[in-house]
Amino acid sequence: MLYSEVQRIYKSKTHKSKMLYRRAMKVFAGGVNHNIRFFEPYPFFANSAKGKYLYDVDGNKYTDYWMGHWALILGHSPKPVVKALSDQGKNGTLYGTANKVSVELGELIKKLMPGAELIRFCSTGAEATMYAVRLARAKTGRRVIAKVIGGWHGFNTTLMQTVNHPFEDPEGPGIIEDDGQFVESMPFNDLDRSLKVLESIKDDLACIIIEPILSSAGCILPADGYLQGLQHFAHKNGSLFILDEIVTGFRVSINGAAALYRLEPDLFTIGKIVGGGLPIGAVCGRKEVMSLADPVLMKEKQLRCAIGGGTFSANPLSMTAGLATLTYLKDNKIKVYGKLDRLGNLTRNGLTKIFSEAKIDAEITGTGSLYLMHFLENTSKKITNATDVAMSNKDLLMKYHTALMGNYGIFFLPLKMGTFSDSHDEDDVKKLLSVTRSIVNSGVLSKNSYHD
Amino acid sequence: MLYSEVQRIYKSKTHKSKMLYRRAMKVFAGGVNHNIRFFEPYPFFANSAKGKYLYDVDGNKYTDYWMGHWALILGHSPKPVVKALSDQGKNGTLYGTANKVSVELGELIKKLMPGAELIRFCSTGAEATMYAVRLARAKTGRRVIAKVIGGWHGFNTTLMQTVNHPFEDPEGPGIIEDDGQFVESMPFNDLDRSLKVLESIKDDLACIIIEPILSSAGCILPADGYLQGLQHFAHKNGSLFILDEIVTGFRVSINGAAALYRLEPDLFTIGKIVGGGLPIGAVCGRKEVMSLADPVLMKEKQLRCAIGGGTFSANPLSMTAGLATLTYLKDNKIKVYGKLDRLGNLTRNGLTKIFSEAKIDAEITGTGSLYLMHFLENTSKKITNATDVAMSNKDLLMKYHTALMGNYGIFFLPLKMGTFSDSHDEDDVKKLLSVTRSIVNSGVLSKNSYHD
Repeated sequence: MLYSEVQRIYKSKTHKSKMLYRRAMKVFAGGVNHNIRFFEPYPFFANSAKGKYLYDVDGNKYTDYWMGHWALILGHSPKPVVKALSDQGKNGTLYGTANKVSVELGELIKKLMPGAELIRFCSTGAEATMYAVRLARAKTGRRVIAKVIGGWHGFNTTLMQTVNHPFEDPEGPGIIEDDGQFVESMPFNDLDRSLKVLESIKDDLACIIIEPILSSAGCILPADGYLQGLQHFAHKNGSLFILDEIVTGFRVSINGAAALYRLEPDLFTIGKIVGGGLPIGAVCGRKEVMSLADPVLMKEKQLRCAIGGGTFSANPLSMTAGLATLTYLKDNKIKVYGKLDRLGNLTRNGLTKIFSEAKIDAEITGTGSLYLMHFLENTSKKITNATDVAMSNKDLLMKYHTALMGNYGIFFLPLKMGTFSDSHDEDDVKKLLSVTRSIVNSGVLSKNSYHD
Repeated sequence: MLYSEVQRIYKSKTHKSKMLYRRAMKVFAGGVNHNIRFFEPYPFFANSAKGKYLYDVDGNKYTDYWMGHWALILGHSPKPVVKALSDQGKNGTLYGTANKVSVELGELIKKLMPGAELIRFCSTGAEATMYAVRLARAKTGRRVIAKVIGGWHGFNTTLMQTVNHPFEDPEGPGIIEDDGQFVESMPFNDLDRSLKVLESIKDDLACIIIEPILSSAGCILPADGYLQGLQHFAHKNGSLFILDEIVTGFRVSINGAAALYRLEPDLFTIGKIVGGGLPIGAVCGRKEVMSLADPVLMKEKQLRCAIGGGTFSANPLSMTAGLATLTYLKDNKIKVYGKLDRLGNLTRNGLTKIFSEAKIDAEITGTGSLYLMHFLENTSKKITNATDVAMSNKDLLMKYHTALMGNYGIFFLPLKMGTFSDSHDEDDVKKLLSVTRSIVNSGVLSKNSYHD
């Protein structure tokens, strides 16, 4: 099958989305509100979602492996969340004050993630990481932030450095040169070179901020000892080690990646799953660091590290949905995470086998419920960092994801990591594998199918 | 009455809140998730809210003039929003994709605010202003941002300059000196001095960002010609004029403050009301500026101004609640805004009369549904800028707001601007006025009642 045929099939099923995309282009730059949500020829427009399914305006049903930017660990609109929303919606969406349910959610997070001696809720992950690095600068009196190449911490101005390939180039106009003067980047998974970078800036090093598993850069696992090596350097150096668990928190285990990799970050950020599908972010960590933001202890602005907050922080809808989700996860821990791990392993093993048999050079990265396919045709390297992913064959991945979506109703946000939720089951894996075999056999992933 | 007696009464009614505050202090720095939500002796903990009322965990009922940071123009959980949430909650809280309801909300915003040639939804006001100034830097290739002293644009790192008194001091540790090197501040309402500041930086001036009415700094109205003068300078100078309408949008008129003051900003930011009580922010404006963020036109990162977006951007719950709210406002425009203006005027006039008769030197600032009391005992000046507010007698305002809350069940977030919603009525004004008279007569606002 030719790629043009794959695109034709998608277009033939999405007339209403095409019309809506025309309207959207008159309202939003590029027709979308998040750059990655655009894909060729045009994105479908979602109209509803339930469990593992996403429905578009043409009535197409997609099995969803994107799951709201990986936030929906129980699937779309799971029962506990729907009930909580329906009850809370009548009783206030935004108190704008201290409130009870935020304390309850905070206490549950502390129980599951003991590193959270204190917590500050905000509304997005981009806010949480921005506040975390401000706290680190306040604590240390130093300025430099170390991150890894390809590390993604949201759209805040401070951390928009070395996010997209080519990594050595600035992240576009709007981020001025001075914004990057106190941010240094290290190559993920290369401890020797990372330590050299850190050594060169150690006197002014406020913190290292890192995702334990690179998410947006391409689902890249940490090499043994890498994260521990960075943490060791930070602590020896009086710098803060900040773990960005916005993707991995409550995803790779109920205690987060910190438990999985035996880390003890000074601060960590969470988001996504913690809001049960509603907007949330949080910075958590050691009391002596978090207390710098205490408005009671630090009455004078000269002493207080000013962090949000924000109008919507600790709003009862996000708190209630988050509490319902974490409570369900806690009460069904073995069942849920056991299943997620099993589905992930079956998928990684199954896909590896299919591509190996078809002699297509591919690698499936991931752990637990997270995974991403990489076509290695352009590169002899295994996937160890963001540059390896950038060098892989994205055209093939685009074809694969488009064929899954258009021909078979299986939705990965094109080029992005996929995930399972508790609403998926083994039949989904079977279908994904059998459909992948069909796509491989159709020839659409062969070299000449793109420009035809 | 002594102030200690006012505090005693509040404490006697809020035992459960006190217990909950003890728990909260073990979870959150200072027990809160937004600094301004703490007040002495401890904040009450909200448990539910409906219409104009906020209920705490002790069962106290407060008539709410804080209204979720002024976001809830229809009151808490108004019918159209409750219905929308209940319907949408079952059908998905987060699609993570292009979706229909976001287009509908965007189209309605464009209709009501024609300056919104294109829109980008994000999740908070702090994100919206951060993206707006990045767009201005991208458009102009310049670096300097001008804001006014006391201007509040959320907790993003870029705009955390000259926010709190003493304004000349840095905004605490965490914000490093270099963060402020390209932000210049002007005195609000002093056009001559503001133009001098602008003239001194004009070659590198990317934008002016300003709230048309200073909100957090103390409900300060713009002097005739001030905003127009700044806009004129910006346009003459090839800089962008950015109006921060996060508080005023859909609040001071259905077309925002831009319509009220006949302004034509290049970009403007909205939030609060637009989400119908759910998390939202948006940057809107001229197509040629917004298009710099277009991921389709600007495929290469070197060309594209990278702005969010974010996981929760355009999520169907916020979009649905916002659409229900704006639709109601549009369909009931004359009724709603007529009432809000009437209640505001009655309040300002009534309070002015009471304080004047009691020979307490006070000024009530505001317009439409927004208003704040200022006690001028320490200062001979009228309120024209943030310094005037900082010089006013905050102790008296604290006593007044605490007495309203503890003795009479009327809630203003202490020291903060109050507002009406469509759920308030003239009886609320009557009560506020008669209670204010009682507080004045009680002697609690006399000089010696604080330290007793």
